[in-house]
This record gives sequence, C-alpha cells and structure tokens, in this order.
Amino acid sequence: MCQLLGMNCNTPTDICFSFEGFAARGGKTDDHRDGWGIAFFEGKGCRMFIDAIPSISSPIAELVRCYPIHSTHVIAHIRKATQGEIALENCHPFRRELWGRYWVFAHNGDLPEFNPTGMQYYQPVGNTDSEKAFCLILETIRQSFPEGRPSLEKLYPVLRKITDKISELGIFNYLLSDGEYFFSHCSTKLCYIIRQAPFAAAHLIDQDLTVDFRELTKPSDRVAVIATTPLTDNEVWTIIKPGELLAFQDGLPLQLA
Amino acid sequence: MCQLLGMNCNTPTDICFSFEGFAARGGKTDDHRDGWGIAFFEGKGCRMFIDAIPSISSPIAELVRCYPIHSTHVIAHIRKATQGEIALENCHPFRRELWGRYWVFAHNGDLPEFNPTGMQYYQPVGNTDSEKAFCLILETIRQSFPEGRPSLEKLYPVLRKITDKISELGIFNYLLSDGEYFFSHCSTKLCYIIRQAPFAAAHLIDQDLTVDFRELTKPSDRVAVIATTPLTDNEVWTIIKPGELLAFQDGLPLQLA
Repeated sequence: MCQLLGMNCNTPTDICFSFEGFAARGGKTDDHRDGWGIAFFEGKGCRMFIDAIPSISSPIAELVRCYPIHSTHVIAHIRKATQGEIALENCHPFRRELWGRYWVFAHNGDLPEFNPTGMQYYQPVGNTDSEKAFCLILETIRQSFPEGRPSLEKLYPVLRKITDKISELGIFNYLLSDGEYFFSHCSTKLCYIIRQAPFAAAHLIDQDLTVDFRELTKPSDRVAVIATTPLTDNEVWTIIKPGELLAFQDGLPLQLA
Repeated sequence: MCQLLGMNCNTPTDICFSFEGFAARGGKTDDHRDGWGIAFFEGKGCRMFIDAIPSISSPIAELVRCYPIHSTHVIAHIRKATQGEIALENCHPFRRELWGRYWVFAHNGDLPEFNPTGMQYYQPVGNTDSEKAFCLILETIRQSFPEGRPSLEKLYPVLRKITDKISELGIFNYLLSDGEYFFSHCSTKLCYIIRQAPFAAAHLIDQDLTVDFRELTKPSDRVAVIATTPLTDNEVWTIIKPGELLAFQDGLPLQLA
C-alpha cells in the first residue's frame, strides 16, 4: 500500500521538513518505492511533481526537499503498487478540473474489484483503483450540484455518502482538496498534528533532523500536517478514527455533521 | 506575447539542449518573464512543471535544463502576459482529461474579447484567453465525437474548423497534444526543424552552446522541434505558413486534408 502526507495552513508554509521525513519512506526507511508525487496549491493555481522512481533517488524529490514552495494546501503520496503497474500515469496525486478549480486526490488503500460505470464527465487515464475512485467522487459531486460549486456544509454530506459507499469495497484512506476545501478520510490509518503557538522543536522519525519552529513562524501561524503514520517522535499526533471524514480549514479540523 | 516550444519524436528524447536556449528567452535574451511551463508525456502519463517566475531564475527550470527527461511529446511555453495577471493558474501549458487521456495546450497570441459560453464539460481555472480557447477546443471535439476518441483523420477536420473560428478573433499560434496526436497551429509565427540521420552539430542562438547530435543519436532517430522562432543559427528551420495546422507523428509532419 501507500503513504499519504497532507498539509493545510492558515498562511502559506513550506513542507520541506515534513517532506524530508516522508520522502525517506520511499526506499530508505520504508519500501514505498513505486513512485511518488506532490501537489501544491497556490491560490487557484496548482503545481504538481510526480515521478515513477523512488522518492529517495528522484532528482525531482530532491528539488522539492530543498526548494521551499509556500502553499496552504499540499497533498503528497509515496506509492507501493497494489493495482496498476509502476508508471507515471499511475502515480498519485491525480488532478482534474471541476467548477473552474483543480481538484487533487491521493489514496492509500486497496479497492479490489472496483469498476464504476456510467461515468459522464471523468475517466481514469491510468489503471489504478485510486484514480477510478477519484473519478467517481468528482462525478458524484458534480452531478449532485449541477448549479455549481456548493458551500462546504452542502458538499460534506454528499462526499460523506459516496466515501462510505466506496469504503465498503476495501481500504480507502484519502486526501482531497480543491485549494480551498481540504478533506481527509480515514478508513484504517491516518493521523494529524496541529502546530500553532507556542511553537517548539520537532524531530523527524525517518531522518535525524530537528527543526525549531519558533525560529520560522509568526505567533498567528497554524499548520495541520496529516500523515499515514506520525512523522515526528517528540510530538503528540492525533489518530483519526476509522470512518472519520475531516474537513480542514486554516489548519484546523472543522466540526461538520 | 509568449513563445512556444514543442518536440515530437519517434523515440523518447530529452529536450535539454532546446530548452536551454528557449529558457534563456525567459528574461535573459528576451523579455518573456511572466512565468513558464513544460509538459512531458511518458506513455499516457504526463509530467508538468510550471512556475510564475522567469525561467532564467527558476530552480524548477534549472532542474528541467539539467535532468534529462525522455519523452516523445513535449510542449513548453514562456509567458509575457497579455490577458490574465502573473499567477500560477495562468501559466501554460494547461491540461485536462478527455477520452481517458491527458490533453496539453500552450498558446502564443492574443484573443481580445473572447468569451465562449455554454461550456458543458470544461471551465477555465485562470483568466487567460488561452485557457478559454483550450476549453472551447476540448468542448468542441468532445461533443463532436460522443462515442469516444476518433482517428486522427476524423479528428483533424473538426479541430481545423474550431481552430479557424477562434483564429478569426485574434492571434492563435498553439501546440496541442494528448501524448499520441501532436498538433501545431500557426496563426502568425511558428517554425520547425526535423533532425534525422545524417545528424550534425547544432549551435544555439540564445546561448553559446553546441551539441553534436552524432554522439547522442541512433541512425533511426527522428526528432521534430517546433518553436516560435528558430533556436539554432546553423540549421535550416522551416517556416509554418499562417493558417497551417500541422499534425506531427514520429517526428514528421503528416499530410492531412
């Protein structure tokens, strides 16, 4: 299976520190060697990097580790193939346009015998269960709101319903964002941490690297980092319950019905 | 206005040499400083790099210059903004999915007062005339072939017609590809060169750099490079006539009605 990393903040923040530890799992501290990818929203714009080689040996991953791109909504993924061969078109995150915005999706899990039909708007390019699930989610919410992009409160129950339906078929941890909304669904394994004032130092599990966030932040900054398993060993991560679909905004999970 | 660079080959080839000269026009030898982007197809997969800063000072452009990505279909663009502010969502190339393939588009020109309406499938994310034109092209060909992806021979006249229609509104040089088909439309300025055996050395106009293709190629290789203006000063480039829509395949322009 794969691993997910997401970030949602109230101010554009770089993900270099978290990505440093996460990327190490792509062949060094773990065996997710079948490709990787990351998407950064900058306003409505979206920048993506994907590669079908392991993140620890990818020159593009090296760039992402070293070049601070500031973003409020980030979704990253390292892949251990279950369905779909090792190929660029099967690397997450996937991206499509809906309601004049880019939507980005990454999945950790496995959906055996998942073959949605009757798709009017979206078709997968590769052959993963993950991209099929993404297409079905977009198809469903698009058809549910023909008048255009709904409020988060109206979108949430529709997303909740299709997520539950897909989850019945297998393991379906995912991150989904359009650069404003940011959703995290836990099917089996996903956790998060909120970093806010008073900031402290954090130490990575996968690399011997410490960052003192006191030196890098303003008191008003707030950052949520969401990951398959904790990235640091000196902070308390919150486990998301199986079945929970969280919407993050400005670095905080919202309470939605 | 902007500049275009395209490559279509019969074998996966890196574009480092051409991109070296092209990227220099993004702030060094020319003033296309308002962002840049490049898309590489690898099979059905598509890797894109975009940046809203000048290509000569972009660390991502530096990566593209130095890291050989091998591809048969490449589309690149450097931007000098006419419509739409300098922002990531306004950087070319643009990408959408159609018939289970990614389609990529970059435009050089200006389409004043272009506001297509009644779009069912595609909406622009940014606010350039270029992205609107791309959406209209995809919308038109999608609606013309509801049964799915047509042959090149069937697609060509439909693309020709919508291209002519949009061209009436202004300047509309473009490159368009889905990783198999590769189209170049000249409205005012576009040229190409075919490199094939016997290979020779080529020298860039925008940088003092020479590459001897004899050392880098097999006798069967064939590469078409398409650009707004010639990139080398010791080779003969073919000027595409205004109004011509060329389809390239395996490094050669095809004869299509």
